[in-house]
Amino acid sequence: MEEKALTAIEIQGAAAKLAAAVLRTSSTSIRNDALVRIAAAILEKKQQILDANAIDMKEAQESGMTPALLDRLLLNSDRIDSIAHSVTDVVRLADPIGQVEQMETRPNGLIIGKRTVPLGVIGMIYEARPNVTVDAAVLCLKSANAVILRGGKEAFNSNNAFVDIMREAIAQAGLPEDSIAHVQDTSRDSVDHLLNGTAFIDVLIPRGGAGLINHVVANAKVPIIETGIGVCHVYVESTADLDMAEKIIYNAKCRRPSVCNAAETLLVDRSIADKFLPMAKRVLDQNNTELRGCPETQKILGDSVIPVTEEDYYAEFLDYVLAVKVVDGFDEAVSHIAKYGSAHSDAIVTSDYAMSNRFLDVVDSAAVYVNASTAFTDGGEFGLGAEIGISTQKMHARGPMGLKELTSTKFIIYGEGQVR
Amino acid sequence: MEEKALTAIEIQGAAAKLAAAVLRTSSTSIRNDALVRIAAAILEKKQQILDANAIDMKEAQESGMTPALLDRLLLNSDRIDSIAHSVTDVVRLADPIGQVEQMETRPNGLIIGKRTVPLGVIGMIYEARPNVTVDAAVLCLKSANAVILRGGKEAFNSNNAFVDIMREAIAQAGLPEDSIAHVQDTSRDSVDHLLNGTAFIDVLIPRGGAGLINHVVANAKVPIIETGIGVCHVYVESTADLDMAEKIIYNAKCRRPSVCNAAETLLVDRSIADKFLPMAKRVLDQNNTELRGCPETQKILGDSVIPVTEEDYYAEFLDYVLAVKVVDGFDEAVSHIAKYGSAHSDAIVTSDYAMSNRFLDVVDSAAVYVNASTAFTDGGEFGLGAEIGISTQKMHARGPMGLKELTSTKFIIYGEGQVR
Repeated sequence: MEEKALTAIEIQGAAAKLAAAVLRTSSTSIRNDALVRIAAAILEKKQQILDANAIDMKEAQESGMTPALLDRLLLNSDRIDSIAHSVTDVVRLADPIGQVEQMETRPNGLIIGKRTVPLGVIGMIYEARPNVTVDAAVLCLKSANAVILRGGKEAFNSNNAFVDIMREAIAQAGLPEDSIAHVQDTSRDSVDHLLNGTAFIDVLIPRGGAGLINHVVANAKVPIIETGIGVCHVYVESTADLDMAEKIIYNAKCRRPSVCNAAETLLVDRSIADKFLPMAKRVLDQNNTELRGCPETQKILGDSVIPVTEEDYYAEFLDYVLAVKVVDGFDEAVSHIAKYGSAHSDAIVTSDYAMSNRFLDVVDSAAVYVNASTAFTDGGEFGLGAEIGISTQKMHARGPMGLKELTSTKFIIYGEGQVR
Repeated sequence: MEEKALTAIEIQGAAAKLAAAVLRTSSTSIRNDALVRIAAAILEKKQQILDANAIDMKEAQESGMTPALLDRLLLNSDRIDSIAHSVTDVVRLADPIGQVEQMETRPNGLIIGKRTVPLGVIGMIYEARPNVTVDAAVLCLKSANAVILRGGKEAFNSNNAFVDIMREAIAQAGLPEDSIAHVQDTSRDSVDHLLNGTAFIDVLIPRGGAGLINHVVANAKVPIIETGIGVCHVYVESTADLDMAEKIIYNAKCRRPSVCNAAETLLVDRSIADKFLPMAKRVLDQNNTELRGCPETQKILGDSVIPVTEEDYYAEFLDYVLAVKVVDGFDEAVSHIAKYGSAHSDAIVTSDYAMSNRFLDVVDSAAVYVNASTAFTDGGEFGLGAEIGISTQKMHARGPMGLKELTSTKFIIYGEGQVR
């Protein structure tokens, strides 16, 4: 059984590698043509997708999936329209491949430049959102990479429908259908086969919860780009505009608590805690946000605040839950962020110029904010045009990753017989 | 015993992490001051280094090390001068840290840019060249990274002397001496402890032979940048200027056969093989280069050519040995390179414009040359000012890596209270 799964993925891997060699030298126009055909086919075969999704939804309901997760799994006509629309958005983005950077003539006459090239074969491991299947496939295709998709088993039928439709569309455009592969084995075995797929995977991108990411980081033999765990902080400094701070913590916590850029901990300077904490509680109460506070927070806000634990400070709640700590100035705030944070997105609210600069310097996170909500950490908001994930590692890419982050480079050298 | 080694490296790792936090916000001038002090101290304490190197040399001679390797291990007054001189060269390079790229004002008024920041703690595993100890430490210091050095056991005393001198010099400049750490355990255990050092290593760079690199790639839990295995090709196409081709293959093979950018296989178009192979043999004979040829090569050059094996085509000889194959045109040449090459450096010699473009497009290597020697693949030759290694992977950096490749980025965001 395990032997068979391994063989199936290895066969897909070998086919993806061959497809990647074709994509590597493919023109921008043939790849854009394939994308246009994908968008059209998704709209045309909407019923096929809805039927497949209905099977997934039925199984998920029977297995007792929570309403929030059921909603993430659900596809309807509007959502499919929106997925197709986002494909045509990607058509309009500039081709990230074939750009030559830093080309110069060296003293010996050699002309040397760095040309952007695809990474090759990208593995994607993700959980139960079927739209990720199309997003990832389309960004990889635009950047001339082959992709091997391994989605969550809850969305298997929906993903399969999308991949079948996309493979047919790209074949009609004249590109190899194995440019987009879908792993058929939804057991944990198939994740581990991908983690060991050094023969065919150039880069693996895991997207999902802490359990998946930690498993991948601990076990991958292939190069990976770690994404997404976000223990984000908002620090309200003593000189903050408290009305602004109130809006920012409310947005950072309550806009969408289930995403990685949501705030998990509020840090408040002692000198303003008496005044600010009641303001914060009032807006957070609108969503019945559960506050877990330090003793000083409890003293100010009273019994409705649950005592915070050490584990709470490390936690990515992904829910209407917020840890709250009163701190004794800047140094304690940034020490707390360094110790408990995940180096994703952290914000200071301040009106002090020097404090703002110090925060930007000292906090070692992928996105560091002054006077804005952490909710902006997103490829679209940052102007990348698209997003394949948010890197929380330091190698290759950090923060929101767009098409550029799906490329590598090669040096190209034009000579006239030079020897060294 | 193993437990003890692990603890020692973990202690060094924790100290390096603290040092990295200080380096991260250190000024350009304090880091340059530390570099100047390192250069001066190396010159001043030359005798201490020579004495330590004499111990290494004595042990190496007694253990029967080859003359070529003994020469790589040897330090003398001139070589130490040259090492100190290269440190002052690094002082003059621009600081790669703190540059802000792609800063723009978004439609909502947020000002967003990407600032270059250090990677953090870099692990370096390398073999028996003591000058790498200084090169690596100095490039890491310039780029505000802490470094944990694990050199070859043959150079242990030389490396220790260099590290002692450098630590003292940077402490005098006011930077933490733990910015540069030297692993004291020279057994294989210490390599494996570094490979598992996810708690303190941000990026690990292995430099050395295929045995070391393959061990690291197979076993690392920390992010790595794979370097250096070079199975490089020179393809002499049917329209090549044969005098130029003769100079290029001679330079690519015989300039320094022990380095990774040296050619290991010569591919020659059938239509010119009769004429070119004797020309190539004549120049390669100057260094008694051993030719291992395909049957057609043997037919043309006679009995002095050893029959080539499949393994020879995969081999990085690092010696005056060259595999030679007659090919049936462009497609066979690039297929051979794709199958047997290591995607390091590959060259075509041609006078055909379309062929030159096709080669640059199709060959998927870190450096792809038209009419020049593969020997140019080097950070200095490419204008990077310095080199910490040559990446043969596609993530993060590809080809020669300079200071820029020792950096990551963080997004900095200036707001005025924006929420999403």
